[in-house]
Amino acid sequence: MFSEQIDQSILKEIYDKAISVSDFGKVATYIPELSLMSPNLFSLSCVISESGEIVETGDTDTYFTMQSISKILSLSYAIEKLGMDKVFKSVDMEPTADSFNSLMRLEMASPIPANPFMNAGAIVICSILQKELGRGAFNEITSFCELFTGVKPKLNQKVFNSEMSTADRNKSLAYFLNSTGLLMDSVENSLDLYIKLCSLECTTLDLAKIADVLSCGGKSSFTGKHPLSFETVKTIMGIMITCGLYNGSGEFAVRVGIPAKSGVSGGILAVAPGRMGIGVFSPPLDPKGNSLAGFYALELLSDRQNLRGVKILD
Amino acid sequence: MFSEQIDQSILKEIYDKAISVSDFGKVATYIPELSLMSPNLFSLSCVISESGEIVETGDTDTYFTMQSISKILSLSYAIEKLGMDKVFKSVDMEPTADSFNSLMRLEMASPIPANPFMNAGAIVICSILQKELGRGAFNEITSFCELFTGVKPKLNQKVFNSEMSTADRNKSLAYFLNSTGLLMDSVENSLDLYIKLCSLECTTLDLAKIADVLSCGGKSSFTGKHPLSFETVKTIMGIMITCGLYNGSGEFAVRVGIPAKSGVSGGILAVAPGRMGIGVFSPPLDPKGNSLAGFYALELLSDRQNLRGVKILD
Amino acid sequence: MFSEQIDQSILKEIYDKAISVSDFGKVATYIPELSLMSPNLFSLSCVISESGEIVETGDTDTYFTMQSISKILSLSYAIEKLGMDKVFKSVDMEPTADSFNSLMRLEMASPIPANPFMNAGAIVICSILQKELGRGAFNEITSFCELFTGVKPKLNQKVFNSEMSTADRNKSLAYFLNSTGLLMDSVENSLDLYIKLCSLECTTLDLAKIADVLSCGGKSSFTGKHPLSFETVKTIMGIMITCGLYNGSGEFAVRVGIPAKSGVSGGILAVAPGRMGIGVFSPPLDPKGNSLAGFYALELLSDRQNLRGVKILD
Amino acid sequence: MFSEQIDQSILKEIYDKAISVSDFGKVATYIPELSLMSPNLFSLSCVISESGEIVETGDTDTYFTMQSISKILSLSYAIEKLGMDKVFKSVDMEPTADSFNSLMRLEMASPIPANPFMNAGAIVICSILQKELGRGAFNEITSFCELFTGVKPKLNQKVFNSEMSTADRNKSLAYFLNSTGLLMDSVENSLDLYIKLCSLECTTLDLAKIADVLSCGGKSSFTGKHPLSFETVKTIMGIMITCGLYNGSGEFAVRVGIPAKSGVSGGILAVAPGRMGIGVFSPPLDPKGNSLAGFYALELLSDRQNLRGVKILD
Repeated sequence: MFSEQIDQSILKEIYDKAISVSDFGKVATYIPELSLMSPNLFSLSCVISESGEIVETGDTDTYFTMQSISKILSLSYAIEKLGMDKVFKSVDMEPTADSFNSLMRLEMASPIPANPFMNAGAIVICSILQKELGRGAFNEITSFCELFTGVKPKLNQKVFNSEMSTADRNKSLAYFLNSTGLLMDSVENSLDLYIKLCSLECTTLDLAKIADVLSCGGKSSFTGKHPLSFETVKTIMGIMITCGLYNGSGEFAVRVGIPAKSGVSGGILAVAPGRMGIGVFSPPLDPKGNSLAGFYALELLSDRQNLRGVKILD
Repeated sequence: MFSEQIDQSILKEIYDKAISVSDFGKVATYIPELSLMSPNLFSLSCVISESGEIVETGDTDTYFTMQSISKILSLSYAIEKLGMDKVFKSVDMEPTADSFNSLMRLEMASPIPANPFMNAGAIVICSILQKELGRGAFNEITSFCELFTGVKPKLNQKVFNSEMSTADRNKSLAYFLNSTGLLMDSVENSLDLYIKLCSLECTTLDLAKIADVLSCGGKSSFTGKHPLSFETVKTIMGIMITCGLYNGSGEFAVRVGIPAKSGVSGGILAVAPGRMGIGVFSPPLDPKGNSLAGFYALELLSDRQNLRGVKILD
Repeated sequence: MFSEQIDQSILKEIYDKAISVSDFGKVATYIPELSLMSPNLFSLSCVISESGEIVETGDTDTYFTMQSISKILSLSYAIEKLGMDKVFKSVDMEPTADSFNSLMRLEMASPIPANPFMNAGAIVICSILQKELGRGAFNEITSFCELFTGVKPKLNQKVFNSEMSTADRNKSLAYFLNSTGLLMDSVENSLDLYIKLCSLECTTLDLAKIADVLSCGGKSSFTGKHPLSFETVKTIMGIMITCGLYNGSGEFAVRVGIPAKSGVSGGILAVAPGRMGIGVFSPPLDPKGNSLAGFYALELLSDRQNLRGVKILD
Repeated sequence: MFSEQIDQSILKEIYDKAISVSDFGKVATYIPELSLMSPNLFSLSCVISESGEIVETGDTDTYFTMQSISKILSLSYAIEKLGMDKVFKSVDMEPTADSFNSLMRLEMASPIPANPFMNAGAIVICSILQKELGRGAFNEITSFCELFTGVKPKLNQKVFNSEMSTADRNKSLAYFLNSTGLLMDSVENSLDLYIKLCSLECTTLDLAKIADVLSCGGKSSFTGKHPLSFETVKTIMGIMITCGLYNGSGEFAVRVGIPAKSGVSGGILAVAPGRMGIGVFSPPLDPKGNSLAGFYALELLSDRQNLRGVKILD
């Protein structure tokens, strides 16, 4: 095992470098409520796998909504509850070069969404959970999240309302999926759960704690709970590394090289397996919807700590 | 660092399990010469990064052609010679869900091939190398390969002739790319180099030695040479993990979880960074063109050796 | 001008031949209420342009719903009310080889629907009418129809309810169009008008009378009204000949050779300009959604009467 | 029958109006030799079906290459020689909204080209002819053309050479079609015939004479020959009206309303069945590859002479 050499001053140095690129990004505006976020916010939190130690820097008290990062929770819980076969009957696990809200492949190539991290795939997962869990679905998933972070995440009602009122593209996806028989529950219920999960609030430390569970093979260094089987860990990390940053996943794998999942609020959750769980947050986005400074901070951290784990040259 | 606990008996056990699934695959027939390969061949070779030790099992004397695995060599050499900017001006680094010989995205979405491991992208890379290196291109790249393996790989003339005579789809790709100005050299020269590199012969040990260089950050445990910069290592591994197994890359990332590159002759090169370089070979393919038993052997090895590097649960 | 040589016995002969192929078709089932139609129904009505004479045969008392044939009414009325420029800013006039409910081109090629006879295009037209005419839109369009046929068409409430409850694909289209800013009124209002127009009842004589107006350059032989400008006539007929039978429009142009528009209830409206307006009805459909016997009857009629108008060989 | 009221002064008036829009077009440059054409050339020729009379205006002595208009000849001859079934086994007859040299639908939707007027479809037709007719194919087709025009058309060797040297996209199409087994002869032979037919020279009177045969149901008013069966006439005219002006066919059907076929040299052949055969020529093209002034001249002529044949309003 690596003995992780890291402290707050290293993170602070990364913060200082990374924040400078955020000027080139744009805070998401397609969900009006998200556009209110200050572009200057930045936080970076790590949970060291070896020790469970927390190292962090920046505006670590800031809450933001998970957005697409919550797709990790819904997919994990679906696998834990229903098993791989049932989940991957309705959604594939392959990356595409299409944008997160794309639907053309559903008509052109395969009725089954390419992966569970595209909106189409995540809506299918939510319909499966909604059908299986019924009215308690949302509550159960927040309790599931508590196994990772120690606290039940809260719904940001303003963001939820804002997303609900601007969800045309997601509604288009959901009705399409329903027309081909892929939704297990109604369009309304499936989207309600989907958007509620997107609207869950978290800090970068919460993200780092969720990532810690993946880094530690399914068990939390922090809560001592064991929410994920090893099979689920492998599945989530495999889909993160290939599909986690939308159609920027390839570039992320090159520049950072570890499994991660981004959200349009500016958060990114990343895992260096056996090394650390990471959460980073900075609202301004690149054109593909990924946090610009968050992406760069992870690149700096990965290089600095050799998170890919290659043999160090003499 | 992990102290790698592995010996030939572990590989033998994996061999026995993996070979059993090869019955469900089909040896490639679209290149007539490839269809002559015995479906019962199997070999698996590892170079341990810590020690440089070689562990292997099966028909390790068997030579087969690299096919798409050679795309690692051409891309690496292009980056080393010309730099990232020049290479990635003409090809992107994003995975798609399209098959390896797909061209529709070139018309539909972007004239630039999605990544250098799809045929379209690799042909562009070969045109760049051909233009830069001229008539000596093929010879230079085989010399480059010698830095990894200690021997210059040989051209299998029969396979080369066979591929040349059945290269309609690749010709279609090359002429398309030329019509949009993306080929740097002629269609004929670019395809000649492309198919020559596909027709290079290797053993699984050769593949493991190439992978060893990636695992060791650019330097060969075996030859002592240092053919790749760290930036090239990161780029190659990032593209391998997202695009290395064609449109089966997502499933491979889930089930195996390490960077790899397959070829239709049945070979797969894989890297567990800092841990080991791996070559595996078994001709029968799954419907996406990946070695069925090779894929499964890597899954067994990854699980057995915890190649993802997650923290071991107590 | 041709002096039209036609009488009921010619139509009866065509009926007898055409009805025999209806066994090879299938009554539409995706709208449950439509599936209740007897497959043996058949009617054929012509209004002779020269004289205004009516010739018809078969179950001419049978009412059926217009379905996509109503797209002629909505497009005509939109052009009359708003002019070509305003209408064709939001929808193009080009045929595609895609099915009537396709949406992939909206993402892949152009946000503007390819033509007003695909569902996407017709929904845009309905949103324009809804915005322009408000709550009275439906009533106004039925009054507009009265100018052609002499009677206000009635809504089939059962078919309307049935379509409303199975409109997932159309909802998907409408939400997509709304997400790109192409809908001028709400998704609900636009779809309500769209499906109401699809659910209007008619006989084949009604269709023939609408076609008569096109044949006579905009004026009705029957009501004496003049609902269409010559520009609208040209536009409607041009779009009918290229796009009127969904992705079977090419084959129809070859086999029949005159402008027409089909609906999934089994009706087809056709125009032989200056010669006759035609309505035909037979519920069983071919795989592309066009009435099998209706298509064949029009082919027989076109050949028998030389409706293409080529010079007769000596 | 209409008694055609037309004389040279009407054509002259149309010429004067139409030529004014040619400034907004661009002479084709992708075939270097074509770019040498003067943008000011214009000719318009009509053969009146009733009488066989010729009316024409402009630079009627100017020869230009047929380009895509020759697709009428190759398709006609293929149908005459081999029958509908054999021809339409390898190519469909449906319009698309794709550009003339598009190939994405071949991978995405159907391996069979959408229609014989797209390059892909025409190359398939040429491969069929080449296989059936062997080395004499080109000569036989020019003899076939003589049945329409009274003279064997000549090959423009400079244009042929120019097109051959810039045929990358057509080569891409041909190799793709060969990879899916759709070419009946070699890529080289098929393209050689295809480009030779594109390089045939003609005047607008030649085009009008070919159109005259279609207008007269298969027989030439001019040569007295009868080169086409009525079935071929129907097929050619049906494909012309839906696919004849590339992805501008819909707009042409609206604005002009009669079957036509354009070529990138600036020629358009059009048929008003039973009324007249028309040839028009003006090199500057619109963005879709159709002669701008030629298109407009046909619109003026169609409106002026009521070529759609609608009943004249009192």
